[in-house]
Amino acid sequence: MSAKPVVLRLGSIGYAREAWKALGEIANIVTVDESTTRDKFLKELKDPKSKLHNVQVITRTFESVEQTGRFDKELAQALPSSVVAVCHLGAGYDQIDTEPFKERHIQVTHTPRAVNNATADTHVFLLLGALRNYGAGIRPWLKGEWPAKGPKAGAAVGHDPEGHVVGILGLGGIGHTIANKLKPFGFKKIIYHNRKRLPAEQEYGCEYATYEEFLRTADIISINIPLNSHTKHLINEEAISKMKDGVVIVNTARGAIIDEQALIKALKSGKVRSFGADVFENEPQVPQELLDMPQVIGLPHMGTYTVETMKHMEEFLVQNAESVITTGKGAAVVPEMKGEAWVDQSKPLV
Amino acid sequence: MSAKPVVLRLGSIGYAREAWKALGEIANIVTVDESTTRDKFLKELKDPKSKLHNVQVITRTFESVEQTGRFDKELAQALPSSVVAVCHLGAGYDQIDTEPFKERHIQVTHTPRAVNNATADTHVFLLLGALRNYGAGIRPWLKGEWPAKGPKAGAAVGHDPEGHVVGILGLGGIGHTIANKLKPFGFKKIIYHNRKRLPAEQEYGCEYATYEEFLRTADIISINIPLNSHTKHLINEEAISKMKDGVVIVNTARGAIIDEQALIKALKSGKVRSFGADVFENEPQVPQELLDMPQVIGLPHMGTYTVETMKHMEEFLVQNAESVITTGKGAAVVPEMKGEAWVDQSKPLV
Repeated sequence: MSAKPVVLRLGSIGYAREAWKALGEIANIVTVDESTTRDKFLKELKDPKSKLHNVQVITRTFESVEQTGRFDKELAQALPSSVVAVCHLGAGYDQIDTEPFKERHIQVTHTPRAVNNATADTHVFLLLGALRNYGAGIRPWLKGEWPAKGPKAGAAVGHDPEGHVVGILGLGGIGHTIANKLKPFGFKKIIYHNRKRLPAEQEYGCEYATYEEFLRTADIISINIPLNSHTKHLINEEAISKMKDGVVIVNTARGAIIDEQALIKALKSGKVRSFGADVFENEPQVPQELLDMPQVIGLPHMGTYTVETMKHMEEFLVQNAESVITTGKGAAVVPEMKGEAWVDQSKPLV
Repeated sequence: MSAKPVVLRLGSIGYAREAWKALGEIANIVTVDESTTRDKFLKELKDPKSKLHNVQVITRTFESVEQTGRFDKELAQALPSSVVAVCHLGAGYDQIDTEPFKERHIQVTHTPRAVNNATADTHVFLLLGALRNYGAGIRPWLKGEWPAKGPKAGAAVGHDPEGHVVGILGLGGIGHTIANKLKPFGFKKIIYHNRKRLPAEQEYGCEYATYEEFLRTADIISINIPLNSHTKHLINEEAISKMKDGVVIVNTARGAIIDEQALIKALKSGKVRSFGADVFENEPQVPQELLDMPQVIGLPHMGTYTVETMKHMEEFLVQNAESVITTGKGAAVVPEMKGEAWVDQSKPLV
């Protein structure tokens, strides 16, 4: 056993038991106690007698943040020198500050693509829900208030796709999958904004707009960008003020891309007509005002929550770990580490 | 004014004010009091001194049933002999028993096509909602229970379209529009059942199945048939017993197509995994059990509730009335009256 590289698995396996079993053939898989806290974890990492001391690959889930806290500078610096890779389960890896890991030449991998369809389906659901104002129907429906409140339970009337412009902020894997699914719905057009205009063959029929044009033109703003220091509160009071009156906003990326207090203000004034979201700035805490506004439709971060997608993601996570072990390089290294010499020239662990 | 044909408008205008104004040029439009009851309405119809006595065309909305009650045999027989057409706002006209109107050679028209997109969008929303089990997320989300109930607010995990068969019961205008919108979602295949197999060019790539095959094969059953004496409780205990274990059912047609008590039983046992619906058997009354089941996602009959679609429907209603006045025949006569000699040979009213 001792000759095998050591993989630390943080967080539980839901579906990919076969894949983990196969990984066990080439790696020694260790875990931490569910009762582990950040303090305990940091102490264990530094303890030469701990099973974590020789760990080479760490895999982690979104929920394992409860045991370890964020993968920040402090944690990166506490890792033993044996660690060569951190493999994250999920497309978004904002729980990891990649810079201090980069400094230590520790690869970070994630699981993009695997999440595209499930996230896009959630997005389409919330987009239709916000456009049609179903949040204003679901609330009284659930309370059995339909008879008393009259037709449609008194909900405000919604809109059809017809005549409306969808604006995709971030035409990447998820954004493109959303655009593709929205095509038969008959929107007037689909525009997009990325920092750099894409080559025509990657635009998939969506029209490029500068950021200012984008904010001014879109009837529905669909948010699909990663959260980082540049995108935090990108949708703030100033950005909202440039949008169309009665704009619809949909967010399945990360909550903190939107300044939630500015959004609440704009929902109250009617500047933003409705809002659909799977993610919230301080989730799982959601401001009571958002919960109570009929023009808001929300989900508790269920974007990739399906049997099929979670299995795909977990299998992709194992594939990343396996690739690090057998080739030295993860299957999906995060963009900011791609092309680094220390990544490309890394050696197999076996 | 007296030379103009008389049009009785039951129910209010929401959007098509211009169209009604134009109709007013060729017709004398009369209305009833909002406080009208069925008794008062039937009495007025029979009163030779009432403004209703010479009415030739009646237009009606779904909600006007509150003033007049259903358009049944009693009402058909009470209509003055001047009446030649009843123009219904909506695609579904189950509030009208067409047979007694047919006997009296009174045309019934409706507004199909205009509702296809909005109803299909509602259907896709509920289908994704039921497949993904969002009902189980929305309920605790709305109550602010997310932090306490843990990840995804404790909702049961859902499924992706991948690998699943959608079964469209009723591949007509709405069914076809749903199939078209579902195509990019990556379902395994889309099958359909109609009483008669359609010609290939009207199947739009959906595979025909006999009713037994259909019930046995579909992972998701999408209901898009009109309600009539043949379809009432078509989805009953026997039909459900033939379905796949864990089937998902979505209904945006009419509630009474499903035997709601049989459905509740099947939801409790898990035979039916989840249910999405915009329509209910005794709406606006919905059984408390359906409201409370996390695996149910419901809307208060908002299928066509958009500014654009209601305008299109109202304009189509006026077009039907206008067509009766100027050509003798409505623009969209209900299927069971199509091709009748008394319809085809009817004379213009002006």
